[in-house]
Amino acid sequence: MSKLVIVGTVAFDAVETPYGKTDKILGGSASYIGLSASQFNVNSAIVSVVGGDFPQNHLNLFLDKGIDISSVEIIKDGKTFFWSGRYHNDMNSRDTLVTELNVLENFQPIVPESYKDAKILVLGNLHPAVQSSVLDQMSDSSTLVILDTMNFWMDNALDELLEVIKRVDVITINDEEARQLTGQHSLVQAAKKIHEMGPEYVVIKKGEHGALLFNNGNMFSAPALPLESVFDPTGAGDTFAGGFAGFLSQSEAINFESMKKAVIYGSTLASFCVEKFGTERLESLKSEEICRRLIAFKELTQFEIETIL
Amino acid sequence: MSKLVIVGTVAFDAVETPYGKTDKILGGSASYIGLSASQFNVNSAIVSVVGGDFPQNHLNLFLDKGIDISSVEIIKDGKTFFWSGRYHNDMNSRDTLVTELNVLENFQPIVPESYKDAKILVLGNLHPAVQSSVLDQMSDSSTLVILDTMNFWMDNALDELLEVIKRVDVITINDEEARQLTGQHSLVQAAKKIHEMGPEYVVIKKGEHGALLFNNGNMFSAPALPLESVFDPTGAGDTFAGGFAGFLSQSEAINFESMKKAVIYGSTLASFCVEKFGTERLESLKSEEICRRLIAFKELTQFEIETIL
Repeated sequence: MSKLVIVGTVAFDAVETPYGKTDKILGGSASYIGLSASQFNVNSAIVSVVGGDFPQNHLNLFLDKGIDISSVEIIKDGKTFFWSGRYHNDMNSRDTLVTELNVLENFQPIVPESYKDAKILVLGNLHPAVQSSVLDQMSDSSTLVILDTMNFWMDNALDELLEVIKRVDVITINDEEARQLTGQHSLVQAAKKIHEMGPEYVVIKKGEHGALLFNNGNMFSAPALPLESVFDPTGAGDTFAGGFAGFLSQSEAINFESMKKAVIYGSTLASFCVEKFGTERLESLKSEEICRRLIAFKELTQFEIETIL
Repeated sequence: MSKLVIVGTVAFDAVETPYGKTDKILGGSASYIGLSASQFNVNSAIVSVVGGDFPQNHLNLFLDKGIDISSVEIIKDGKTFFWSGRYHNDMNSRDTLVTELNVLENFQPIVPESYKDAKILVLGNLHPAVQSSVLDQMSDSSTLVILDTMNFWMDNALDELLEVIKRVDVITINDEEARQLTGQHSLVQAAKKIHEMGPEYVVIKKGEHGALLFNNGNMFSAPALPLESVFDPTGAGDTFAGGFAGFLSQSEAINFESMKKAVIYGSTLASFCVEKFGTERLESLKSEEICRRLIAFKELTQFEIETIL
């Protein structure tokens, strides 16, 4: 089995959507990425930090899913990173109500020795300097590095962000962030500019409108599965990244064709994530359900066409 | 060859986009639908009205494309419908600067005798009572009726709009309008409600995010072709409808499978429309170019997937 290492946050979220609100529940980029990737046949490890207030049952969940959490540092007298947000009625925008960095403020991730040659490294959304420090620890130049980031770092740490972007193979970024990063409105143009910054593969996430994959002039478009209701969009992007990385961990080839499939798996996993609050749906998700939805994805998008003109 | 009748506006547009602005150029829903459908092997007729100020070269364009314009009424002492708009930088929204209905105000479309049994009728965006009056003239109940409409009629003539919606087979509508019409945010839910209103097929146009087709619980999603630049979005929805109807005119079967292909043809035609101002790109469009772009659409969306879980 190949190895996948995930660096990101393990956190508490409190979410309010038009469907209701939660108390502090399990959240964080590494939690979603890890739970999503755990659907695949891969050895994965999370590198993160939590406080003494983090409950054992959340840690047990990761263990139950076969995720190595020996590098999730527990700072006994610290508090876990906490984020709270409220979604607007259209679910496409949200207000952040609370951000308490807590133990995340001084987080210095240490990649376990046995994962330094992992097949795949996912750098979840964190300060880009912290992401770079993880890259410095990796020992095998053939590791596929997938970077996720957000507009906050473009506003507050652009130089360090450009530095880490230069060093990765794949970037996942949402459409508005791609536009902000490049100053290009056209996503085709934006992807070109990001290619020039370093990453060979650019995945632009468009939320309910799906995702675009770019590589050397090749393009692939995957829709999001149209859903009857979106209950809570939190973590959908990270769940996408987890499914994307999980698929590639199991894939022999790493090329445009396997990346296309990885996008479909990522989209499929993300379509489950939004059906319930937080990680709830991912926790109970069965592989049969994923297979059925992959078929739905294929039916949704595939067509035969003859040129009749 | 089967017959296609198109009822809508033939107009002057003046458009301003971040790329420049035009004087009064050829516009109107029927113009775009007709030019787009003229790429197919079909006998088509436009039913519309213009004023004495409408130049012969525009009429000649339709004739050159083999479109029957004997039912485009010319009111010598009237003025042609005129619309002017300015697009915002993101091209997704626009301000209407001028709307002069002119001869459109008293437009009473008369379907030519020989087209009353047309295979396909496209009701371009017009007052829903006028759209209904066209339906009253059709003689063959097997005619496939495709309706396009917009939010203006939801605000100003909802009862008459619901009346005509009840009588059509296919509705094309954009995402925000589908939400407004049904009060449902989820497009899956919105499509269900619209099915209940009458149409067996619901096409939801999402602009740069493509289109969704719904029919009896079946769904199909087509992306828009990601473009390096969108020069002028005017007429893209009508061009989609023209390609959609044009394909179906040539198709033997009218069912979900042929509708899927029609959506792809419609999206392909629309992707050309936005590359230049107004109808310019459609006027010069060659069938080889369409074929090449159909292949690009297929490459953009098609994938093989194995269930590896």
